[in-house]
Amino acid sequence: MKLIRHGEPGKENPGIISDNNTLLDVSAFGEDFNEKFFETDGISRLAAWLNSNQDSCPVLDPNTRLGSCVARPSKIVCIGLNYAKHAAESGMENPEQPVVFFKATSALCGPNDDVIIPRNSEKTDWEVELAVVIGKKASYIEKADALDYVAGYCLHNDYSERAFQLEHGGQWVKGKSNDTFAPLGPFMATTDEIPDPQNLNLWLKLNGEKIQDSNTDDMIFYIDEIISYLSNYMTLLPGDVISTGTPAGVGLGFKPAKYLKAGDKIELGIEGLGVQNQTAVAYSK
Amino acid sequence: MKLIRHGEPGKENPGIISDNNTLLDVSAFGEDFNEKFFETDGISRLAAWLNSNQDSCPVLDPNTRLGSCVARPSKIVCIGLNYAKHAAESGMENPEQPVVFFKATSALCGPNDDVIIPRNSEKTDWEVELAVVIGKKASYIEKADALDYVAGYCLHNDYSERAFQLEHGGQWVKGKSNDTFAPLGPFMATTDEIPDPQNLNLWLKLNGEKIQDSNTDDMIFYIDEIISYLSNYMTLLPGDVISTGTPAGVGLGFKPAKYLKAGDKIELGIEGLGVQNQTAVAYSK
Repeated sequence: MKLIRHGEPGKENPGIISDNNTLLDVSAFGEDFNEKFFETDGISRLAAWLNSNQDSCPVLDPNTRLGSCVARPSKIVCIGLNYAKHAAESGMENPEQPVVFFKATSALCGPNDDVIIPRNSEKTDWEVELAVVIGKKASYIEKADALDYVAGYCLHNDYSERAFQLEHGGQWVKGKSNDTFAPLGPFMATTDEIPDPQNLNLWLKLNGEKIQDSNTDDMIFYIDEIISYLSNYMTLLPGDVISTGTPAGVGLGFKPAKYLKAGDKIELGIEGLGVQNQTAVAYSK
Repeated sequence: MKLIRHGEPGKENPGIISDNNTLLDVSAFGEDFNEKFFETDGISRLAAWLNSNQDSCPVLDPNTRLGSCVARPSKIVCIGLNYAKHAAESGMENPEQPVVFFKATSALCGPNDDVIIPRNSEKTDWEVELAVVIGKKASYIEKADALDYVAGYCLHNDYSERAFQLEHGGQWVKGKSNDTFAPLGPFMATTDEIPDPQNLNLWLKLNGEKIQDSNTDDMIFYIDEIISYLSNYMTLLPGDVISTGTPAGVGLGFKPAKYLKAGDKIELGIEGLGVQNQTAVAYSK
């Protein structure tokens, strides 16, 4: 199943993409794709509901605005430097343990919303990433059991302001949390749709030129290890999002470095998880 | 007004502490102290409701369990190294800009709940802090306007696992996010109760011995500057919690360092914001 959320920002309604690639509104199911939905086996319940009701679900305009494919989670946990070439281009060593940081959940937006270059930003950068959505509460989970805690997968562009992240003192979170820095979607694919999440091509184009191009099998720490590891440091809640790091090809890694300016077009995708298209715009109040 | 949340973990109901120090249940008001409450001027609405209904509010047992005084926010933003002596005891310079990190909101708990020493932890440490609750959406706010965005203040113990934070690679969030690492309360005082938040004594006792003892006027960055600063990096939402840093006297600063073991008693307070009492317990599944 492919879950979407559609409608105006902050007022999204649930939907699905059907097997024949039609967008259907499932507002009548009566739930958002949030913590409670995942906690109460919402995916199975929705599938059962669709068996009886799919034919009466309103068909959506294929150009309808999509929001983040899941509702605002309790946390967005990101893994840094999880592809060796990206660690190198960032001037850092391969980590011995997963590097963990948080992104403000207020940064979430739809997959094709404009990315807003923050006020005083000169180093807004892109990062195509595979994101994992947690399906049930996870605390002190063994690696062998970890994938049982996954509800699904989606595409994420982990936008990063490199000066805010690396030059303003302290921790990375400052460069990861501006509004629109977390486009998520277009859809969350349930796990049955992604038989091997560690063998997916992922790529990003800037103004039509492919500059990130890798495969999730290049991750240093795989998803099962990440979930198990994180669960020693915090409880992962249903609906929480884990973004698993970006491969080489970010702006920071170019010589000279290359960052977004208003008008730039960003297109990115992951095999089986769809495509996002963003346009960079300058902040204006 | 002093807002409390009472009842079993995860099932708390709203309440207040009345002027004569009685705990009253305000479940009949029909709202939790969450983002929507703060966003829709809930404090004024609750005050108006109490004018008509306070006499009929059930009186609570003074020993009733309290939960976090506000519902789970979108984020808990913490300021590091915001007292000069604490920066020195941590072996770090005074920061030139606020040091910012996030704490998982799943770490929230009641003010007198046990603090769970995580599995494999040998360096669980305490940090008494003044926490600020945001009252309305804040993005690119001037310092002069910043305190208008505050709904109230409360006491926070920013528990920290120093090995997880500093020795496991990467960012601090690993040492800040375990369950029970964010006791908040006993109550949130609305701003009218705290005329000068930059002149409050704060202290912490370990097994009866006072080891943190300072005043919020010793902060390097004051609350107005913190809110204004943060609002350039992320949108603060109603109900969000900002914890403003801890003064000297944490376990890390002792020679030799001193950390929690099961059975330790932690008591802490801030002038006008009440007292918390925790007992350290070992993790057990």
